[in-house]
Amino acid sequence: METIKLFCPATIANVSCGFDVLGLCLDFGDVMTITKTSQKGISIKEITGADLPLDIKQNVAGVAGLALIERLNPDFGFEISIDKSIRAGSGIGSSAASAAGAVFGINALCGYPLSNKELVYYAMQGEALASGAPHADNVAPALLGGFTLVRSYDPLDIVPLPSPSELFVTVMHPQIELKTKDARSVLKENISLKKATIQCGNLGGLISGLYTNDYGLIGRSLHDELVEPVRSILIPYFNELKLAAANSGALGSGIAGSGPSVFALSQGQETAHETARSMSAILEATDIPFEIHISPINPDGIKIIS
Amino acid sequence: METIKLFCPATIANVSCGFDVLGLCLDFGDVMTITKTSQKGISIKEITGADLPLDIKQNVAGVAGLALIERLNPDFGFEISIDKSIRAGSGIGSSAASAAGAVFGINALCGYPLSNKELVYYAMQGEALASGAPHADNVAPALLGGFTLVRSYDPLDIVPLPSPSELFVTVMHPQIELKTKDARSVLKENISLKKATIQCGNLGGLISGLYTNDYGLIGRSLHDELVEPVRSILIPYFNELKLAAANSGALGSGIAGSGPSVFALSQGQETAHETARSMSAILEATDIPFEIHISPINPDGIKIIS
Repeated sequence: METIKLFCPATIANVSCGFDVLGLCLDFGDVMTITKTSQKGISIKEITGADLPLDIKQNVAGVAGLALIERLNPDFGFEISIDKSIRAGSGIGSSAASAAGAVFGINALCGYPLSNKELVYYAMQGEALASGAPHADNVAPALLGGFTLVRSYDPLDIVPLPSPSELFVTVMHPQIELKTKDARSVLKENISLKKATIQCGNLGGLISGLYTNDYGLIGRSLHDELVEPVRSILIPYFNELKLAAANSGALGSGIAGSGPSVFALSQGQETAHETARSMSAILEATDIPFEIHISPINPDGIKIIS
Repeated sequence: METIKLFCPATIANVSCGFDVLGLCLDFGDVMTITKTSQKGISIKEITGADLPLDIKQNVAGVAGLALIERLNPDFGFEISIDKSIRAGSGIGSSAASAAGAVFGINALCGYPLSNKELVYYAMQGEALASGAPHADNVAPALLGGFTLVRSYDPLDIVPLPSPSELFVTVMHPQIELKTKDARSVLKENISLKKATIQCGNLGGLISGLYTNDYGLIGRSLHDELVEPVRSILIPYFNELKLAAANSGALGSGIAGSGPSVFALSQGQETAHETARSMSAILEATDIPFEIHISPINPDGIKIIS
């Protein structure tokens, strides 16, 4: 019997100006254990750290794994255990970590027939269960590490982007409930061509900054014209958190995925810590419980622990 | 008396997925001669190759130059002669070449108080005369060379991008009249968020491809969701020209600026020539006169000939 133990990282989708196309990988996350079984199919043995369904058709890891074994058709099965650290509904890719973990682990136990880039498609099928649409902007950085761009969904085309080494992320998670589906429902179907152009300029600037380690350009580009203005009203103290980050020297900040977490990017770990202290001070003065994380960009993504 | 003679290159704005933010520089263009005069102000002595006004307030070179001397306030003046090769209204930056030339030459004769990047703002003032809005996506590549990104207009933030050395441009100019103002009037004020997201994915892919010399990615990214579908109806045989480029092995094609010229990008000079032959064959079968150009990406932009 073979068992694989995986680190399944948290991720941030959108990254301000990269709505639905950009994502980045963090260095904290869940642990998933997958064991080969003689019985075909997938079962979820145990989930600790979160109250999530064990029924494989109701669980993102199960759905993603099923999509992959339909492709690979192995003559054995898989038993999955998950120790969740990433809180569901936090906006930092909790479901993506489980979907990515399931497909990565199954692929590994099958002898790596597919590349991590090819696995993105199958992990997306798990994401569809969580958010109503098979999006790739969390599962791609979870599987590939660093920053990733979803160039296209039809056909699926994932582009890995570089990650400047001094870039650190502060993640403030206000523990309020904000479902991805609800966060999407506030979006406007149409936007002005002018705003789309502004967004394109910033996205281009951010990507250029990632290639050239130009932290100033990265900071100047971290503006979201399209989504943050409407979605941020769902996040309490959003403007105050942004201001705290800016005053602490962060390069920029925005909504992590569909929220409610708020992320800030900083050059250097010390600024990321200072940003964490300032953001914490905002919510400490309220009755909203929160968690705060500091992380470099994780260049490796998902990995085998043992 | 000092005289400077300049090569003022043609440029292509938009570049498919980069509407209003991207531009690239070509290796053909106009020649401009600027002479220091004891009398302050600007005069335009002669324009050959095109029927354009000598009145400095009606001429893009004059308007751009005036904007710059208002800033620099030199105690001498400038006499400008222009030998136009870039046809007005062709979509490949004829007005931008003149605006860029005027500000570059005046700045040079003043001892280079400003950088080329700083000159973009003043050249834009000339562009405003030509197209009704002070856009930078032609004057930036004319002044800086290569590919450029307009990250933002407020504040103005121009980002130079790399130019893969095997990238060649084919420019088909069907000699029909299509004014920039008219080409802008067909644009829709609002677009769907979904299309904006697709555009962002492609723009990100193109920029990543420029940094990594990934010609395949550049080709896959050359799609314009926002403008080409509505603007291309103003260009006769547009779909046929695109198809001819694709069948000749070009990476992709689109409208040069606001048209009517159609550009194609190819990997390698031979493919660019083959693309030129195929595109020419389309218009040779019609009564539309045309000019066709083949050019590498010009990495230097505007330069001093003597």
